[in-house]
Amino acid sequence: GICMEHMGPWILAALVGAAGALGGSLLLEHLSPSPKPPSGVLYASPVSTCSRKVITTLVELGANFTFVPIDLAKKEQKKPEFVAIQPWGKVPVWEEGGGAFRLFESRAILKYLGQDSSLVPSDRRAAAVMEQWISVEYSYFSPAWSPIYWERMLKAKYNPGAEPDEAVCQSKEKELGATMDILEEHLSSSTFMAGDQFTLADIAFMPYLGLFKALKLEHLLESRPAFRAWSERLLSRPSWQYVTAGQVMERAKSL
Amino acid sequence: GICMEHMGPWILAALVGAAGALGGSLLLEHLSPSPKPPSGVLYASPVSTCSRKVITTLVELGANFTFVPIDLAKKEQKKPEFVAIQPWGKVPVWEEGGGAFRLFESRAILKYLGQDSSLVPSDRRAAAVMEQWISVEYSYFSPAWSPIYWERMLKAKYNPGAEPDEAVCQSKEKELGATMDILEEHLSSSTFMAGDQFTLADIAFMPYLGLFKALKLEHLLESRPAFRAWSERLLSRPSWQYVTAGQVMERAKSL
Repeated sequence: GICMEHMGPWILAALVGAAGALGGSLLLEHLSPSPKPPSGVLYASPVSTCSRKVITTLVELGANFTFVPIDLAKKEQKKPEFVAIQPWGKVPVWEEGGGAFRLFESRAILKYLGQDSSLVPSDRRAAAVMEQWISVEYSYFSPAWSPIYWERMLKAKYNPGAEPDEAVCQSKEKELGATMDILEEHLSSSTFMAGDQFTLADIAFMPYLGLFKALKLEHLLESRPAFRAWSERLLSRPSWQYVTAGQVMERAKSL
Repeated sequence: GICMEHMGPWILAALVGAAGALGGSLLLEHLSPSPKPPSGVLYASPVSTCSRKVITTLVELGANFTFVPIDLAKKEQKKPEFVAIQPWGKVPVWEEGGGAFRLFESRAILKYLGQDSSLVPSDRRAAAVMEQWISVEYSYFSPAWSPIYWERMLKAKYNPGAEPDEAVCQSKEKELGATMDILEEHLSSSTFMAGDQFTLADIAFMPYLGLFKALKLEHLLESRPAFRAWSERLLSRPSWQYVTAGQVMERAKSL
């Protein structure tokens, strides 16, 4: 409960480490036809888009994870203790075996956690197509969406009273619309981003879709029914409700 | 020979497709302990950084590939025939079975081609660490390096007489240096980016390293001996010589 705030994530992490969270489970995975869900510690912010991708993946997998919240407003990610495990001072970080194995970069964590699960197609070409759409999110969707997120939501948070630059937003909305036109065509014949199966490629987009309303981007859905239906299909998943209803913070407080 | 220029890549691609390049080789891969090198058609520019990553990978794997050059200066990547296979109008694109399977986004192609080869660690944690460093290239290295590439090399190419904005370059050099400091520490205890093994994570950086001299960035190597040694180790590989000595264009001309 409340002592969490006094302890700070570092002491918690040490406790988790001392408990020896993993044991021999990695060896077992190689022998089992359906591997055990991953188990470990996630250092993340419940409100960061990259963190939300990983939390959603863990919930989809039924993973057993400890959630250590990093407060970005308090710049906890820039503290020396955190920079020691993520040198660029960013969240999220995934940890196993009390620090014996650590991984950063959300898309790398996604693929590590999801491998051999239904979130990654077993066919090698289908898995490559999934990779392609994850890269599309990084190369085209996020570079158009993220500046709007900055202007309309983060800017005033970090600089109280600051106004969004609407010229930037208009230009980026146009760029985002062009990419959404391509995705609209793709999704017109595909239930999910990489085919009939819900995969990591869908999860990679969920945090952006979840903020369309707050960022006044809903009008971009009007002429794109396949994109809109796909978006609703994703955001209705229980994993997304878990991320947005604060349940991951409850998990942290229960430590 | 010379008829290449008159035919254009589209006719060539049709010829390759008609030849039925692949046959049943994908089925064989699943049965073979050491899979056959990939076989297919690469649409790419011999001078683009993303294309060079894929060409290097193909050469490292001893792949049997047809090279179809896309001339970026002539905006061939924006022609309707190319946009039909890469909707954002970018290179590279990898194709198998005469168009039965197509993949874009260079990092997705890299991982598809390299799977089950020595370019990807067989241990699942080591493979995840490789993914992490590929993502570091995309998230931190390229965003600092690419604007300098634009200012000092591409800008004048696309706008004859245009001068580089040195204020942008200075700011980005500082950002690049900060990331190189982190990589310097990492490479001080690691022969290659993801450990003792040369992997796709090294290939992902090679095109940038190959342009350090041309972009007047060599001074950034002076106080970073491990980074410099790693860079020299990579650029001395025959695959890199192949990419830069025009051999891939010779391959295209021999069609």
